[in-house]
Amino acid sequence: MNSSDLDALAGRRVLIKPECLQRTGSFKFRGAWAALSGLPEQDRTRGVIAYSSGNHAQGVALAARMLGVPAVIVMPADAPALKLANTRALGAEVVTYDRTRENREEIGQTMARDRGLVLIKPYDDPRVIAGQASVGLEIAEDAARLGVATADVLVPCGGGGLTSGIALALEAHAPGLRVRPVEPVGFDDTGHSLVAGQVLRNAALTGSICDAILTPQPGDLTFPIMQRLCDPGLSVTDAQALQAMALAMLRLKIVVEPGGAVALAAALFQPDAITGDTVIVVASGGNTDPDMMARALTTLP
Amino acid sequence: MNSSDLDALAGRRVLIKPECLQRTGSFKFRGAWAALSGLPEQDRTRGVIAYSSGNHAQGVALAARMLGVPAVIVMPADAPALKLANTRALGAEVVTYDRTRENREEIGQTMARDRGLVLIKPYDDPRVIAGQASVGLEIAEDAARLGVATADVLVPCGGGGLTSGIALALEAHAPGLRVRPVEPVGFDDTGHSLVAGQVLRNAALTGSICDAILTPQPGDLTFPIMQRLCDPGLSVTDAQALQAMALAMLRLKIVVEPGGAVALAAALFQPDAITGDTVIVVASGGNTDPDMMARALTTLP
Repeated sequence: MNSSDLDALAGRRVLIKPECLQRTGSFKFRGAWAALSGLPEQDRTRGVIAYSSGNHAQGVALAARMLGVPAVIVMPADAPALKLANTRALGAEVVTYDRTRENREEIGQTMARDRGLVLIKPYDDPRVIAGQASVGLEIAEDAARLGVATADVLVPCGGGGLTSGIALALEAHAPGLRVRPVEPVGFDDTGHSLVAGQVLRNAALTGSICDAILTPQPGDLTFPIMQRLCDPGLSVTDAQALQAMALAMLRLKIVVEPGGAVALAAALFQPDAITGDTVIVVASGGNTDPDMMARALTTLP
Repeated sequence: MNSSDLDALAGRRVLIKPECLQRTGSFKFRGAWAALSGLPEQDRTRGVIAYSSGNHAQGVALAARMLGVPAVIVMPADAPALKLANTRALGAEVVTYDRTRENREEIGQTMARDRGLVLIKPYDDPRVIAGQASVGLEIAEDAARLGVATADVLVPCGGGGLTSGIALALEAHAPGLRVRPVEPVGFDDTGHSLVAGQVLRNAALTGSICDAILTPQPGDLTFPIMQRLCDPGLSVTDAQALQAMALAMLRLKIVVEPGGAVALAAALFQPDAITGDTVIVVASGGNTDPDMMARALTTLP
């Protein structure tokens, strides 16, 4: 989708891939479905476990319900209430933890071992990356139909599952479309890691409204893919993400969550960092509370 | 699109046709394109004129720009600022009038005569009705794919162009899908006219937030079609429309304007007036100001 008003603001054509309209309100259902639908029968019977700030949780919970697989989800206690409620409503058992004091990977691995569950990691899993890559296949198809052969493709980036998946798909199907990860300022571990040529961690674990993409560092599987295929990253402020959310509501008639709006924010507010007469933007999710939507709307003139 | 949360609230499956995602943010582009693209060359050169509370204005303005046709749009001075601004931004000449004291039909016909412009009426034009009917063709296709052979199809109804167009398409392609017009309480001229078997006017011309569908009475062309093909109408309060707007943002991640949300409101809040295990709902437009979005969000618990 697109809007001539956003094109004018960005100074180039902005093509949006609205994953907020995907099942469960974010792209995460794609990876979860790819991972769970490929499980052998005995694993499906025992069940799966996932840890997530919310969107992967909902994706796994829905895929599990559709496939008849029991699911346990480990979520931060301070995740948006909507994401916690949605995950429970999808029939998953939700276990909460303290994001600042506990390690979700350890909790997940311990529970997986104790209860014989298959751990579905949010990004460091080849099946999950393959599922997210389907976004890239669709972008390649849409771009070909529109005659767009070269463009920056801006992707909101947490652990890098979506970013690396899209990059792999475009490498094969539209090599002129170059993926660039977009992160919140201060949580731009992937951008810094790409510059340094090695995995770097963020100094902080909390402190941005972009909850969906606050991961400590790029993944072990995703970073080498991004290093090989991605162009330099971009970083946006929370204020820019909020304003992009508001403009998405006003101009595109879609609701995007803060972490899902960072790529649109980069396209709109950092046009000089982008090349070409067209930019492709992934709006990766839309699971946000009404208070955050109202807060975003106050940024409009 | 659909949401299991909305299904639960409505007590049946709710399938949404999101016309807020259409070009210019409402279904109106369809009718405008159908009318303008069929004009003979000499009419295209002189130009067109339209009167509209805003959505038809934007549809005509965009279709005119795409086809290189000059366009004059007559709009109420109290139309949402966003609709006025968008129409001007699309290159149309905007002429405003006082909704309570002046008659837009007279203004439009006078200007059309004086300046040799072709009047594109918002609903009482067979070409416009044919364009809106394409919504019905798509609903028929989607329903067939999902195996839905019988259902109420709830359509926000102003002058009846969309309602009668959809009804004609479904008569031919999915006769088990029965169209029911939905209007704001107090502006339910079509519902009352269907009961009475003759065209009745609303007592008031203003006083609802559902600006997109506040027409004084059903159209001369549209009413006989609706009388022949539609099931009884439904009426919702402004408060119900606002709450439906908020739930569309939260659950579907789409922005629907008040008048565009009345069909969803009927599905969610008047389930006993609807039959069948599936209901189809048209969300007809999304052009609303940030203040109205914020107001809608305050209705959520």
